[in-house]
Formats: sequence, C-alpha cells, structure tokens
Amino acid sequence: MDSSYTSTNRLLTADDCTHAIAGHGRIDPASLFADPEIFAGAGDVDRYGTGARLNAFEERIAALLGKEAAVFMPSGTMAQQIALRIVADERAQRAFAAHPTTHLELHEQQGYAYLHGLDFVPIGVADAPLTLAALDDVREPFGTLLVELPQREIGGTLPTWDELCALATHARERGRHVHLDGARLWECGPFYDRPYAEIAALFDSVYVSFYKGIGGIAGAMLCGTEAFIAQARVWQRRHGGQLVSLYPYAATAERAFDLRLERMHAYRDVARWFAPIVAAAPLAMAVRPATPPTNMFHVYVRAEADLLRERAQRIAREQSIWTLREPVATTLDGIVKWEISLGDAIIELGPARAHRAIDELLAPVEA
Amino acid sequence: MDSSYTSTNRLLTADDCTHAIAGHGRIDPASLFADPEIFAGAGDVDRYGTGARLNAFEERIAALLGKEAAVFMPSGTMAQQIALRIVADERAQRAFAAHPTTHLELHEQQGYAYLHGLDFVPIGVADAPLTLAALDDVREPFGTLLVELPQREIGGTLPTWDELCALATHARERGRHVHLDGARLWECGPFYDRPYAEIAALFDSVYVSFYKGIGGIAGAMLCGTEAFIAQARVWQRRHGGQLVSLYPYAATAERAFDLRLERMHAYRDVARWFAPIVAAAPLAMAVRPATPPTNMFHVYVRAEADLLRERAQRIAREQSIWTLREPVATTLDGIVKWEISLGDAIIELGPARAHRAIDELLAPVEA
Repeated sequence: MDSSYTSTNRLLTADDCTHAIAGHGRIDPASLFADPEIFAGAGDVDRYGTGARLNAFEERIAALLGKEAAVFMPSGTMAQQIALRIVADERAQRAFAAHPTTHLELHEQQGYAYLHGLDFVPIGVADAPLTLAALDDVREPFGTLLVELPQREIGGTLPTWDELCALATHARERGRHVHLDGARLWECGPFYDRPYAEIAALFDSVYVSFYKGIGGIAGAMLCGTEAFIAQARVWQRRHGGQLVSLYPYAATAERAFDLRLERMHAYRDVARWFAPIVAAAPLAMAVRPATPPTNMFHVYVRAEADLLRERAQRIAREQSIWTLREPVATTLDGIVKWEISLGDAIIELGPARAHRAIDELLAPVEA
Repeated sequence: MDSSYTSTNRLLTADDCTHAIAGHGRIDPASLFADPEIFAGAGDVDRYGTGARLNAFEERIAALLGKEAAVFMPSGTMAQQIALRIVADERAQRAFAAHPTTHLELHEQQGYAYLHGLDFVPIGVADAPLTLAALDDVREPFGTLLVELPQREIGGTLPTWDELCALATHARERGRHVHLDGARLWECGPFYDRPYAEIAALFDSVYVSFYKGIGGIAGAMLCGTEAFIAQARVWQRRHGGQLVSLYPYAATAERAFDLRLERMHAYRDVARWFAPIVAAAPLAMAVRPATPPTNMFHVYVRAEADLLRERAQRIAREQSIWTLREPVATTLDGIVKWEISLGDAIIELGPARAHRAIDELLAPVEA
C-alpha cells in the first residue's frame, strides 16, 4: 500500500488540514478532554439534571441573561421546540410566528409539527430580514413570536437596537410570548454593545448555544422564569434529553464559554477585515452583509460548485488549509454561496495566509 | 470552618465513598477521558450522525444483534419512542402494548402520548412478569408489542427461552411489530446462554443501552432494518437528538462495552452469590428473584426508610462504602424495597466487606 497515493488522491476534509478559514480549528477529542480546567473534581458528575457543576453553570447563564432560571439541554432543536410547546399549551394556541428561514422550519424535519402539533406562521419573505412592517402584516393568530439573532440563513444580519426593540414591543403589546433564538446570541454582543441581560430582557424566553461561536462540543440552554424552566425540564425528559449525565457536554461547554466569550469582539473584527477581502476576490460577486455585524457572513460566487471543491482540495493538499464550506445553490443562475463564520482558526492562520488562500480559491477561471 | 465537622455532618452520597455495593464504582470524569483507548485519532469526531468511529460502532452492534442497521442516540427514551412512532405511522395504529411497569409509562413523563400521540395498552398486572396468558387476554387492538428483558421494575425477572419465544410468536402470528426494550439486554446473555443475535432475532427492532450494565456515560442504540433505521434518523433529528457531535458518549460507550461485555457472567455470578446473603440478613424479608437470572435483584426489607438511610450514612462515614439505593415504599405495610444491581464495585470491594456491610445495614433493630 502506497500511503502517499492514498493521501493525495482521496478527498480531504477539514479534519485532514492543520488550518482553516472558518471555525475554531480541528478538534482533537483526547486533547480537548485532557484540559485540566475542564473537570473540577467534586460535583462534576450530574445525574438526570442534578449536579453541583451543571446547576451552577445553569445559574451563571441565567444570571448573565437576567432570567430566573436556565436548563442545559443537549440541543437547541430540543430547547426551542419545548419553549414553543409550553407556550402553546398554556395559551391553547398552536401557532408560532417566525422568519421563513427559521431553524425550526429548515433544519429540524418539522419536529415542531410532528412532535408537538404546532403550526408555523412565516413572517415576510425568506431573503430579507424580519421587519416590523412584515410582522404587522401577519393576519393569522399566533401565540409566540420567535426572533433569531443574528439571522443565520441570510448571512447573519442583525436588526438595529431600535428595530429589535420595536419588534419585541409590537409583539408584547399584542400579548405574544416573545422567544429569542439566540443560537448565536453571544456573537451579537459587539454589535449591540450592551449587556446580554439587556438584550435578553426584550424576550420572555431565550435559547443560547454553546457550540457555534463558543466552540463547545454540543449543548444549549433554555432560560426563562422558574415556572417556565420547571416545565421545560419535564419536556426535556419526554424528549429523551434529560440524560443520565450531561457532564461531557456541560463541562466542555462551560470551559469553551470561559475561553471564548471575551473573544467575540476579536471574531467580529476579523470578519469586518475579511469580508471586503473576500468581496474583492475575482470570482466573488458579493458578501452579505457587506459590513458584518457579527463574526459571520455569506459569500456569493460566480462559479460552479465543482470548481470550488476542486480548488479547495488543492489548497488543502498543498497548504493544509481548509477553505470551503459546502457551496449551496442560490436562486441566481450560476451563483453559489456559502457561509463563512470566523473564530480562532483564521486568527491562528494569520492575515497573509488567509488572504492568499481566499485569492486562490476565488481566482479567475482560466480560459 | 472546621472541615471535619462538615465532612462528618453533611449527608454523604455515593460520590463521597471509595467503595460501593452496586454499580461500577465512583466516576471520575477526568480519569475516564484520560483512558488512551477511548479516542483513536482519525475519524473520532462525528458530525450530525456521520463519523467513521461512530458509524463503525453502529455497524458492530447491528452485526452482533443480527440486524441490518443501528443508530446511536443519546437516550433510550428517545430511541424507544421513535421505534413505536415509526410503526404507529406505518400501520396507522397508535396503540402499543407492554407490561404495566414499562419505562415508557413510569419514567418518561408519558412522552409517548405528549410527543407522539400514542396509546399505551398495559398487559397483565404490574407485580407479575409478562405472560403469554396475559398477552392473549388483551382485547384492545395494538400495533407493537414491547417486551423488556429483564423486567427491571419487578427485580429483573426473565422469561425462560421457551416463554420468550412463545410471546414473540404469539405477537408475530397476529401481525404485530415486536420490539425489544433491551435496556439490560447485555445482562441477559449468561441466562439465555446463546448469541445475542439469536435473542434479537425474535424482535423486529431492538433498543440497547450502554450505561447500565455496560457502564458508559449515557447512550443507546436502536437496531432494525435499513429502512427502519433510516426513518429513525429523521425522528432523531426531530427529537433534537442528532447532536452536532455524539463522540463523548459514543467513544466512552464503546470503550465500556469492550471492557465489560465479557464480565456479564461475573456480574451475574456475584448476584447469585450475594442474593442469598442479602435475603438472610436479619431485617430482610426476601429478595426477588430469589435466584437472579441477571446481575440485579430487589430486596424487600422490614424497616422504615429513615432507619436504613441513617445506617447507610454511618457505613459511608465509617467504611466509605455506599450501600443503599434510595428505598421505595411497597404496597406491603412497613416494607420498603430497593434495587441492587451489581458490577465492578462489589468485585473490587470483595466478599467479606460486602457481606459485613449488608449485615450492618440490615442488622436487627435494637429495642
């Protein structure tokens, strides 16, 4: 067996590269768990939702967000469906309203309907941010308004603070429950430049994630009133999400949180530096948003996905840099896009190599 | 602060003791993950259900159970509800039948009903094993027969092989889907003394756990046909159980499986040695089953729960041995019971100390 043959001919993945543009770099589970800061000794092991470390982490996040209580769950999918179901049962109102690209509609196999019998009322159009005008236009009844910050599927756009307050106020004045899909809430800190509790105060319930910008392995929290979270724990058991122990996720999530929350400014700043560089590359049509409010943006490219994949493979082989998230088709003919979400990896890679890699990936097509 | 005061006066838990009667001993997460056998390097990190290590583990368990496919899930609660839901939708039949003490009815907050709109048809009486006569007596329609091996809530009883075959045949002849709640299937190997695939062959779908006798942190697999498991993966996403990464559970589960599957005979043997010792202790009324077919049994005791708790605290303080699972009331006046499930801990403790500890716990009450 010629291993050089294998290594140069099979398709590489991000895990094969020492560096990357997006994310926080390659995960080595053994090293990750070898971090002496992860486990404290006493109280590390939780059982069915109870444990000194786990519960202290929940209280810490609840306090940071100005909520009475929080519960750690394996996933945001579970946390958000549960939030919506609690409100639906309390109000005898099965409908919730959200942007057409909400994670619940696009990435959860419509669990909200199959498991909870909920109805989804889309607000406005898929390709534009959620607006007060679109919200005001909704004619169907609904019990919960779900707002995602930032709006991931349209590049990570954020409403201004005043726009956000207006959305929440509009919904609250009409007696809605207002829920925050804060999958990337931590990443919004630099833009709003105010305490997370002040953002969360606009919402009755808040979901936050610990794996996206924070870089934990998996895990989420749902935050709200004591009574709301007590109900959420019952639903967590029904979902099969109150595991005998959650410490492998909770402990690594808290460690990642300690490491990276303060880096959110750095991640946003590198996105603001990098977005114009990407936009200026020969094949790039645009990035969206042009001035990223968070650490992420989408890039639209005049190319076939296969061309980009081939180039990404070459860069991976030659420079051990992973450049490309799987490109997705757009409604524009001949244009693909992908998401660039920045973290530790590009900082470690350094500006010169990042610039060069993106210029190679998006170099002109030779005749 | 006098730490000796604190340490002698607060209530101790199993985590405070160096030894225990039940289980596999105290968990130290840092040491657990420091095991160099857990992570292999390449392919360790799964993403949304795909990963070389994770999928190889699934294929290994599927092969061992003689099924086409398997999917790793965070919990059995999720796996079993999903199995029942798939069958219910395929057959347009919402009802499943099981013993009255099934985990789905007692420990899952009726998720089967709240999430899946399923109806539960109890078979026979709660305090007796599932019998063919009781199954034959069911007059309501149902699509799935769920059989738990062993029946945990009644001490870990097992039907004989012929009884088990008769149950499965009865259900299959009537066109039922037959599902195995194999939360403790691995523990049944010594009793049936035949390959796991031969036991699993009686069932259309099989759930197995990796934390009970196996001693993993958490995690389960659902096994069945390729088509069944493909559907299960969709439902896993709906449940919020297809996490971005499951490797902290899957890798530790496989490691624990490698360590302990072959010890199931030893665990059963120690239960057969220990059950009569417990039964002969002064306050003991009986153990059930008298001759344990697996590593577990229940002990019935003529005592107040508080007396046992006090004694367990004293033994924990003086000998650093955790003896007592929280006692539960029974329908018999003045009788409490608890579950004793044996594994590495009692083997490490040794027969003399185990014997002495149980004699102290169940010593006569002084006048």
